[in-house]
Parts: sequence; C-alpha cells; structure tokens
Amino acid sequence: MTQEKALISIIGKPSQYKQTSYKFQGNQGTYYLSSQMLDQEINPNYRILIAGMSLLDDVKNFNCKDYETCSNLVKDYLKENSNVDHNVGPFARTASKIIVTPNVFGNKYTQSKPGLDLYFNYVYKQVLDYLLSLDNVSEVHLDVTHGINYMPVLGKDAITLALSVYSILKNKEVNFSVYNSDPYVKDAVLNINVIERYTLDVRRSISNIVSPFFNQNIENLISPSKVIDGGQCWYKPKLIMRVATALASGNFIYLATKDIRDALECVENSISTINLKMSNNLIEYYPSHKRQLVNVHALCKVANDVFYRGNGIALKDLEDLAKKYSLNETIEILIRNEINLIKRVEGSIPEDPKLLDIIMGGDGLKKCNANKRNLFAHGGFERKVTYLWKSNDEIYVSYRDCLDNVENQLR
Amino acid sequence: MTQEKALISIIGKPSQYKQTSYKFQGNQGTYYLSSQMLDQEINPNYRILIAGMSLLDDVKNFNCKDYETCSNLVKDYLKENSNVDHNVGPFARTASKIIVTPNVFGNKYTQSKPGLDLYFNYVYKQVLDYLLSLDNVSEVHLDVTHGINYMPVLGKDAITLALSVYSILKNKEVNFSVYNSDPYVKDAVLNINVIERYTLDVRRSISNIVSPFFNQNIENLISPSKVIDGGQCWYKPKLIMRVATALASGNFIYLATKDIRDALECVENSISTINLKMSNNLIEYYPSHKRQLVNVHALCKVANDVFYRGNGIALKDLEDLAKKYSLNETIEILIRNEINLIKRVEGSIPEDPKLLDIIMGGDGLKKCNANKRNLFAHGGFERKVTYLWKSNDEIYVSYRDCLDNVENQLR
Repeated sequence: MTQEKALISIIGKPSQYKQTSYKFQGNQGTYYLSSQMLDQEINPNYRILIAGMSLLDDVKNFNCKDYETCSNLVKDYLKENSNVDHNVGPFARTASKIIVTPNVFGNKYTQSKPGLDLYFNYVYKQVLDYLLSLDNVSEVHLDVTHGINYMPVLGKDAITLALSVYSILKNKEVNFSVYNSDPYVKDAVLNINVIERYTLDVRRSISNIVSPFFNQNIENLISPSKVIDGGQCWYKPKLIMRVATALASGNFIYLATKDIRDALECVENSISTINLKMSNNLIEYYPSHKRQLVNVHALCKVANDVFYRGNGIALKDLEDLAKKYSLNETIEILIRNEINLIKRVEGSIPEDPKLLDIIMGGDGLKKCNANKRNLFAHGGFERKVTYLWKSNDEIYVSYRDCLDNVENQLR
Repeated sequence: MTQEKALISIIGKPSQYKQTSYKFQGNQGTYYLSSQMLDQEINPNYRILIAGMSLLDDVKNFNCKDYETCSNLVKDYLKENSNVDHNVGPFARTASKIIVTPNVFGNKYTQSKPGLDLYFNYVYKQVLDYLLSLDNVSEVHLDVTHGINYMPVLGKDAITLALSVYSILKNKEVNFSVYNSDPYVKDAVLNINVIERYTLDVRRSISNIVSPFFNQNIENLISPSKVIDGGQCWYKPKLIMRVATALASGNFIYLATKDIRDALECVENSISTINLKMSNNLIEYYPSHKRQLVNVHALCKVANDVFYRGNGIALKDLEDLAKKYSLNETIEILIRNEINLIKRVEGSIPEDPKLLDIIMGGDGLKKCNANKRNLFAHGGFERKVTYLWKSNDEIYVSYRDCLDNVENQLR
C-alpha cells in the first residue's frame, strides 16, 4: 500500500508576505511562503491551504451573499497569478483543497455569539472530511508559520483532533509534524523548525478523543438544545457521557450494540451548518456553536465505527474491537482474558441466550444487577448482565434486557 | 483552604501595543494589554509575565554577559514607568514572577542548535518551579493574545504540561482557561475570547504525562548522551520507558520501590542549564536541549512522587497510590480488587516475605517468571513475582529478587 503525505499550510494575510530565505534540513531557498520550501523538501501528495474569509478585504469584492459564494471569491483570489497583491498563488494553485474558514477579525468579521469556536470547528470538520476521502495518508505535515493571532493554536489543536479520528477510522498510524519558522527579520535566513513531531497511533488517538469527557463540567456544554443556536435536533448529554465512559473503559459489548447514529447525525449537521449575513461589507457568521460539539462529533464518529448493527456481537469480532480500540494494553488484556475464560466453557453455551452467571454455575438470581467494579474490571463481561449464545458455531454476546442496568453504571 | 488564582500573560513586543478597547464578560475597558482587562475581571492572587530575551533590542543596552544579568535588564525595562517605549509597566510591576525566555528571533537571537525547543523547555520549567512554590492555586488563566509567532502554540503546550505535573504533585484539580482577544483592528472593540477551558484533574494530567511515551520513536530522543549537548550525566532510555509503562498500567508496586532520583536529577540539571554567548549584540543560547527532555522531566517528577523510600510498600499506602495516580477507573478498580483478595488470605501472610503464588496455594516453582498479561490484568500483583509479608499489623508488598523479571515485562 502506498504511503501518502499531506502538507497543510495555515495562512493569515498573504499580501504582507515578503521574499524570505528559508533553511530546512540543510537546504536553503527563497520563497514568500515557508510552506513552499517544505513543499520542495517533503514532496507531498496533497496540499491543503487553510485561509480566512476575512481575506475578502483584500479581494475587494463583497459581491456574495452566502458562505460558499463568498469563499469561492477568496479561493479565486488565492489562486490568482499576481505578484502584486499576494504570493501564495503557486501553493494555492497546486493545492488539492483550499479551506476558507469563518475567521473572526475585529468588528468586521464576527460570530453571532462572540467567541472563536467557529474557526476551530470548521478547521476540524473540513480537514477531517477531506482526509476521510483519502485512504493512504500516513504522514501529515502542518506549517503554522504564517497563521496569525489565534490561528496556530486553534488550528493545530483542531487538526490534531481530526487526525485522531482519521487514524482510528482508517486504522492507521499517522506521523504528525508541526513546523514554525524563526520569526521574520529582514535579510535573515530563517530556519524552518520542527516544533512538534510524533506518531499518532490509535491508542493515543482514543486518548485524545475521550480525555475531554473526563471532566465534571463538560456535561452542561454538550447539550445541543442550549448550545446549538438554531439547531433542529437533540440528543441526551447523558448518552454522550456513557459512550465516552464505555470507550475509555473498553466496554465494547455496549458500544457494539448501542446505535448512536441519531446523535451523530444531529451533531454532524450542527457543526456543518455555517451561514453568513453580509451588510455594509461587514460579515456575521451564524449560527455559533460551542467547541465542545466537535468533541461530541469525534466521539460519536468513533462510537459509530465500533457499532456492529446486530442483536449481539460475535466473540471473535469483539476480540478484534478490543485489539483495535482499547485505550491501553491493560484494557485489551482484560477483554482477552475474559474471552479465553468463556472459550473454556464453550460446551455449556446454548443456542438461546443464557446469562453468563448461570453458565458459570451461579443461580442467576441477581440478573440485571450489575456491580460497577466488576463491569470495569472484566472488560464489560459482568456475569449478572451478560448473555451468551451460539449461532453457526460462533459465540455471541449482548446485554439484552440488562442494557438499561449497564447504562446506569457507565458514569 | 483558600483557592487562589494565577493569571499568566505571554507577550511579544510591547513597544508596538496600542490603547485598545477590550470587552470581557459584558464589561468594557481600554488598555494596552488584554491581560490588564482580565486582571481587573479575574482579580488574581499571582501574575506571571512571560517575555523574551529579544526585548534587549528595545532595552538598547547589551551590557550583560550571562543569562541572569541579561534577563534582569529585560525585567527592569518591562517594569519601567514609561509610556513612550512600551506599556506593560502596570502589569509587570505587580507581577509576582517575570520569566525572560530564551526566544529565537531571526539571526539575532539563536539557539546553538537550530530549533525552538528552548522556549518550550524554559516556559515549562519556570512556570512549574514557580507554581510548585505556591500551594493553593486552583485556577490558572492564560492570555496568549500578545504572544507572537510560535509563542502562543509552544507556550500553551508547555504550560499545560507544567500544570499537569503541578496538579498531580499537589493533588489538586486546576481550572484552566486560555484566552485570545479578537485580532486587532483600529478603533474596534475587541472581545477577549475563552479559546479553551477545562478542569485539569489528576487523571487527565497523568494521561498528558504518559501519552508522549506511547510512541515507538521517542526512545531515541530521550537518551541524554546524544541529546543534551554538554550534559554531564546519563540515564538509560529503557528505564524511562519502563517507568512510563508502569505509570500507564498502574504498576505502583514497581514505582513505589524504584528509585529514579538520579535520572530526575540528571534531566532536571539538563533542562535548567541555560547560558548565552554575546558578540556584536548577537546572542546565542546554549546548550540546546530537545523538547522530549521535558517529557522525561515531567514523568520522573511524578514517578519520584510515587516513590516510597522503603524495601516494600504497605498495602494501605498502595491503595492510596492507586486512588491518587491511576490513569483511569479500570486500573484503580483492578488494584482494589487484588488488595481485597489479599486481605481475605491475611491469616496466611507471614512476617518473612512469601511469594503470593505460594500464599494462594501454588507451588511457587515458577518464581520470577512473570506473565506479562497477568502483570497488567492484576494491577501489578502477578503471583509469581509478588512477595507479601506482615510487619506491625500491616501487610507489605514488593517484587524483591523478581524486580529484574518485572522490568523486562514493562515495555
């Protein structure tokens, strides 16, 4: 399988860029954009340019009324072959994707509700959608040199989260490098520095996705009824917290049978909806939506990938889920241990679902009465809530009528 | 206990700041520095100002030869009561800590080895040392509005890591907020935006500290012999990886008895050493040290906090460690389950150390022959390597002569 590379460049105001001598890995070159130097050295398969809607000020054409038309004006401007106005043309024209973000700029480009969340959310969603349309990207290079103000901080964090989802859904390790050149000083040769470089594997990605939910305050922030201005849908914040707990604790029996497609669709629609109002060349983006919705989206996207679309899950498939999605080695080992124990009593598993407690010789009297500690310590295989059965020589597992009881422990 | 607040401001070049109208939480005010507006609203107990050595250009006095003397020139400049040159005086004069970073600036302020690692490392170490000298800080507000170039990205990440160590060592939850104002536009009222806000609890902090080590490539980057130019000491990269694995998997029996003070001292000395060479008003910082050393420092700082300074650890103290330092609930539960099992056989535990396998009725023939899966699944209580004994009515635990065998599994 080909291993492909993507180079992402975050830019602010290209009309201010000057010819600059850059140095990278011993080589030197003169460019307007540090990303062009990286382009030469890295030779990426895909170039992604992340600019801002506020470049309409430089386009000097405000003849647009909706987000797409306005962003097309910015895209055309960036691709123009003009050295007078700006100099990102060579990069923009070869870019496979140009993202025009709803960036806030003073009182001229604002959010309907003050904040900078839309920049974060838009970068996350656009980068994720684009990466998911590709299959073989295993190296991502991000140049934040030319980002201004909040762009490098929010852009890097948004892209890290998008890469986390990508690495899980594609089951790929991604080598992630972040660059920033030395600050501009006239006539100086500026080094392009690696400011961060690591391999984002599936475990670290799962950790990135569940960490924001280890937080007592987040439950109030993920409720779309309050948060999504103009949102047309709703999901229970408690459901999201349960899914996060299940993913963090390796309860794949729950995740495999829990259909969260409605919540995913709701949050996906919400963070994808972006409009603008234009009046007197002032732009207001709406609706605003909180940054936490992006964390919900990342979580639901992964949970939906675990979802199995059946009444129960085959033990061998559960083993694969544990191998792929466990937050750490301990959790993977716990689940494999339980599966091995069950295989030893395979002869006692009937074709009709039977409670694990009874299979193991218990009386089954405490059915649907899960002990939280056992639920966590046994990778979800709590004897009093877990049913097993055989079908076509496969062992299946599910919580069936004990699902509500399990959900109450996932907090 | 008083809950105290700290406000941290990252600044670039204050001589360029203009009087600006800021809005925050419904209030409005005119300041040169957004952090002054936050200061009014938050009313912090401590103010920390993070500036750069390159401000010597504005001091216009290069009459210094060592890092401390040069940084004192910058500190004095920042505290001056002058509205001509710059306007951070009011904030600087009330700051309880001013940090003058070894920032790279074009070809005038450089690292001995190209890169921006020193900024990251210095911010981490200085903020951590200062916070550790305080006891009751539970709210940290970081304003990155005035940082330029790489400062906001690297500063925020360095401070997040420092806060993670602080929250673990002080066993405190820290409410962390990051601010960035709208970008400057003449005559506009700029909103000061919360760009990130969450509670950093001990679990999330442990996750921040161990995550960088879930990475196949890091082992090559934490070896000080190659990395620390001018380093006078050494530790085994393998030791660091084992400590990280032990912390991530909750092996507190190992951590409680493993003395890593030499490694901590070595990495602490390394990242604390910073000098400069001045010639023709050009400054070179040396030695350079890789950013990964900071991750080693954070890990060793925590591991040293777990270290118990005895031949073994009392079971009740191990329970406390599990409660305090477990990466997640599953690991805490696993350890508590093992401790409960052991308490049930308390009568069979002698005063001289005895292998758990024998106490549990095994033959002890596979002594010091740990099964990795069991080691992880039982929170470190692998029967074939774990010794128990009683002293003054307490049960103690240790790996004793099986320590080498355990270490070989921690990878």
